[in-house]
Amino acid sequence: MKPPSALSLLVDALRVLPGVGPKSAQRMAYHLMQHDREGAERLGGALLGATRRLRHCERCNTFTEAEVCEMCLDEERDPSLLCVVETPADQIMLEQTLTYRGLYFVLMGRLSPLDGIGPREIHFDKLLQRATDGVVREVMLATNFTNEGEATAHYLGQTLKARGLVVTRLARGVPAGGELEYVDAGTIARAVLDRRTV
Amino acid sequence: MKPPSALSLLVDALRVLPGVGPKSAQRMAYHLMQHDREGAERLGGALLGATRRLRHCERCNTFTEAEVCEMCLDEERDPSLLCVVETPADQIMLEQTLTYRGLYFVLMGRLSPLDGIGPREIHFDKLLQRATDGVVREVMLATNFTNEGEATAHYLGQTLKARGLVVTRLARGVPAGGELEYVDAGTIARAVLDRRTV
Repeated sequence: MKPPSALSLLVDALRVLPGVGPKSAQRMAYHLMQHDREGAERLGGALLGATRRLRHCERCNTFTEAEVCEMCLDEERDPSLLCVVETPADQIMLEQTLTYRGLYFVLMGRLSPLDGIGPREIHFDKLLQRATDGVVREVMLATNFTNEGEATAHYLGQTLKARGLVVTRLARGVPAGGELEYVDAGTIARAVLDRRTV
Repeated sequence: MKPPSALSLLVDALRVLPGVGPKSAQRMAYHLMQHDREGAERLGGALLGATRRLRHCERCNTFTEAEVCEMCLDEERDPSLLCVVETPADQIMLEQTLTYRGLYFVLMGRLSPLDGIGPREIHFDKLLQRATDGVVREVMLATNFTNEGEATAHYLGQTLKARGLVVTRLARGVPAGGELEYVDAGTIARAVLDRRTV
């Protein structure tokens, strides 16, 4: 017995989603067809709309529907400050802190040689061009504090410093609300090394 | 800062998928737009195709693109035997056993009064009409052995027996490869009660 082709095409297509295997894909397809056809139609339209309309900002590399994204055009932001993040989600988190008023560059990834992700995949040339526009003076590296994020920051830092830019990195230390007893030793070690005068 | 609208529409639309919250939806959207636009387009088309083309079989209630599904039209199957399952996935599992040659009725759900799922939602009228067509003699209840599946089987069994049909239920017992030491007591108790002569 074969399921009807529109259904099997859907189950198959759902597997492009990260973390969705054959069983979840089947469950999702049955759920949508049985309980939420309107939602399925909306999702279908949103997918086609997004693939057609989304492109990368020519300056900061994030997703946008225009040539240059809104934030890069915002004249109230400090153009001498450039923050490098891995993903648009990281950028949103930083914006929510309301502490940063410079511009961004979104790598859309991190260096990961084992996965074949090198400087080209994280748009290093574009970043270099952007950072050396003569206006940017400081580049703040805000990649994640994972092994890959640290390696990316190291690589970018070395190259950008060689171009005469001030390169900074987000501070590491005990998180807000953290109790020393429950914080891992690596974090405390870093907080000791990076201690500051009060 | 707002993300571009095509992107936020997509993140929002992805949440119709079962088990997908705001963070996973964002991750899925970024992944598709960054690494698999072709897959996104295929998924979009599959969703629209499925919503337009899939309907319920007039006889067995499963998903089909025709009025009556292929299996219901298969003259090699025994029309006097009707197996009731909760979902098309259950039907596929039963087919894979190669032990059943009758026809099916797919409830597309199970009784669950707390979730507002009553006899109407599991298409009870359609099943009743199907089972009392004069050809069906035995109805085999193959709903799950969960609380809800058992309740559904009980309800269906009572009503169908009252119409003079032979109603059977899948056997319960020790699973294939099961070691008594590791099987739960409820299962062994049922295996003792339902023991058969050899």
